[in-house]
Amino acid sequence: MKKILLLSVLLLVGVMTYAQQALWGSAPVVSPEIHDDNTVTFRLKAPKAVKVQITGDFLAPIPIQTPNGVWEAPGVADLKEGKDGVWEYTTPEPLAPELYSYSFIVDDLKMMDPANVYMIRDVATVTNVFIIGGGRADLYEVNDVPHGTVSRIWYNSPTLKMERRLTVYTPAGYETSGKRYPVFYLLHGMGGDEEAWIALGRTSQILDNLIAQGKAEPMIVVMTNGNASQEAAPGETQYGFKAPSMNLPQTMEGTFETAFPDVVKFIDKTYRTKANKKNRAIAGLSMGGYHSLHISKQYPDMFNYVGLFSAAIMPDKSVKSPIYDDFDQKLKTQFAKKPALYWIGIGKTDFLYQANVDYRKLLDEHNYKYTYYESEGGHIWRNWRIYLTEFAPLLFK
Amino acid sequence: MKKILLLSVLLLVGVMTYAQQALWGSAPVVSPEIHDDNTVTFRLKAPKAVKVQITGDFLAPIPIQTPNGVWEAPGVADLKEGKDGVWEYTTPEPLAPELYSYSFIVDDLKMMDPANVYMIRDVATVTNVFIIGGGRADLYEVNDVPHGTVSRIWYNSPTLKMERRLTVYTPAGYETSGKRYPVFYLLHGMGGDEEAWIALGRTSQILDNLIAQGKAEPMIVVMTNGNASQEAAPGETQYGFKAPSMNLPQTMEGTFETAFPDVVKFIDKTYRTKANKKNRAIAGLSMGGYHSLHISKQYPDMFNYVGLFSAAIMPDKSVKSPIYDDFDQKLKTQFAKKPALYWIGIGKTDFLYQANVDYRKLLDEHNYKYTYYESEGGHIWRNWRIYLTEFAPLLFK
Repeated sequence: MKKILLLSVLLLVGVMTYAQQALWGSAPVVSPEIHDDNTVTFRLKAPKAVKVQITGDFLAPIPIQTPNGVWEAPGVADLKEGKDGVWEYTTPEPLAPELYSYSFIVDDLKMMDPANVYMIRDVATVTNVFIIGGGRADLYEVNDVPHGTVSRIWYNSPTLKMERRLTVYTPAGYETSGKRYPVFYLLHGMGGDEEAWIALGRTSQILDNLIAQGKAEPMIVVMTNGNASQEAAPGETQYGFKAPSMNLPQTMEGTFETAFPDVVKFIDKTYRTKANKKNRAIAGLSMGGYHSLHISKQYPDMFNYVGLFSAAIMPDKSVKSPIYDDFDQKLKTQFAKKPALYWIGIGKTDFLYQANVDYRKLLDEHNYKYTYYESEGGHIWRNWRIYLTEFAPLLFK
Repeated sequence: MKKILLLSVLLLVGVMTYAQQALWGSAPVVSPEIHDDNTVTFRLKAPKAVKVQITGDFLAPIPIQTPNGVWEAPGVADLKEGKDGVWEYTTPEPLAPELYSYSFIVDDLKMMDPANVYMIRDVATVTNVFIIGGGRADLYEVNDVPHGTVSRIWYNSPTLKMERRLTVYTPAGYETSGKRYPVFYLLHGMGGDEEAWIALGRTSQILDNLIAQGKAEPMIVVMTNGNASQEAAPGETQYGFKAPSMNLPQTMEGTFETAFPDVVKFIDKTYRTKANKKNRAIAGLSMGGYHSLHISKQYPDMFNYVGLFSAAIMPDKSVKSPIYDDFDQKLKTQFAKKPALYWIGIGKTDFLYQANVDYRKLLDEHNYKYTYYESEGGHIWRNWRIYLTEFAPLLFK
């Protein structure tokens, strides 16, 4: 009996190995290969291709003039065909420490790197990713430190009359410490969702590392879905695996801001929080910065720390919502209560740079105190990760 | 002041729209398009391609004789080029309700469908997915029912001297009910990890739906990483975004089974569990079925419900571990304690079918009671989802 059964594992290992080889192709290439000097080689085996290119955020961006402003498209470089139909590109210079995204373009068709299983979705685009370690980028890596828990949890919003999905980071030790924690609400940009900050934002790695280094306080981080008509991220809703709508209704017209206290109530009921203004922060990128600005002034007793990352500032004139009424008076009330931190970060080439200059001028005119952080580059995830690593250590101290 | 600021949102919306169009391409096609009769059309715009194919699990599989048995490769079909370089394939027959996976092959190069953002990773392969609803497949969809929470949480294994990652499903209402729950440990197959059951296995959707229908008891589901030398899934470890090793050390040689009580202790300490045999189940697919078999007989007072899904049965003869010693005696002890359920499921064309026939013969000879479920098809996710929907309703009743 036993002899017959003994074969089953050999069979399993053998067939699995065969299947994996079939899945990987017969002659896999290594891509990307990060060399010791931090230059990187990308390879694609494509013997029948006529042209193979790479596009990624480590290549010089291409500024494109649109009717509404300058948009920086990711740069493009050509791969060269070598032996056995393997195309190759090596960066001419070492890459600085950072998390980078890229895709191949084969005869004008964008595709993933089949040798790289690591992909991150941003809005409706999936790209391959890799990390050059060192410096600040070490905060983006999984290191040998205690790890927090990342949960996808659904809350009921009485205001929106919907069940909606949240991503919640609880710091290492939360489950058994019995302690209460401060809460940081972290909001995504236009087209994003409750997965954005945890994926490209590297929130759990950044918080794990900053907390382990003693640079940030242990805190709960709540990542909402800022599209008020949406239950959850694409693929996580009753809409199923149908193509996500490119329309973005109910994002910057006051609904999300109006319903925001539902989230705070749910979190305070469900988690061991320090449920007061002193222990609450809110920040967001782009549209999420806009949300943070308007939520924090609408509810001036809710948040003691506010972060505007590459923020849009003011609503479209045609938008009517009580949220946007009495702007000057609400801002006055908010600042009269002296928030512990009002933090503004923006990149020098961001298309929202001038709007932020104007907004800071308004704050200066009224002598409203804020902290300003200016970085290189534009409206990109690289900056939002940097702003998170700068902002989180300032909270709850 | 306000007038200047007002522009920023228009700018944001305008640039984002432009950027999204650039990301999506100028003339996106719809793919896959599920027609009313459940035939499906796939489309790819590739004007320069010479040959475009599709491979997926809805096409008749290609049996491949390997030195170790028959492996069923996913079938392949040709797309036809139409207007404007848009290639198309429509299934000749309606597809049965199911979650399906597919990829395109363009001039022998496998690629994702750029019109479909939904992808699931299985081992080292990423494929696009879609669902044909109806029947059992409705259990795989996000429906309008209360949703459980899915957490990625790290535990310390004193036996393995490692921090390791778990995926844990807690049923809707867990956070605030104050109640204790039974626990179902659900194990992946060779090459998989703690993400496998939640992604392709649709565990959270299946449990949400079965619990909402009153067919399954509210329970905690713990999805472990069965590769004992691995901290976590690829990309979630200190190994970073380097190419995952195709070697699978410490998977079927007793280490994982030896260290399993560490997981149970952690879960009972961390969650509100009913911490006794009566309220514990274990099941797994393929290698996970093998683990479930050996863990449940090694610790006969730990699990009252056991599920072997397309299970490998016996270890390779060369493997020496106390876990595999005294097989017959341990099995005798386990069955003398009368487990509430010992469930075996396998597909008719599975390469492990005969091993399971032999194992059932052994159980029959000793009059050990078990439940047997035989399905069509082979060693594939379609079957493992079916087995989960059959097995979960039998637990903790």
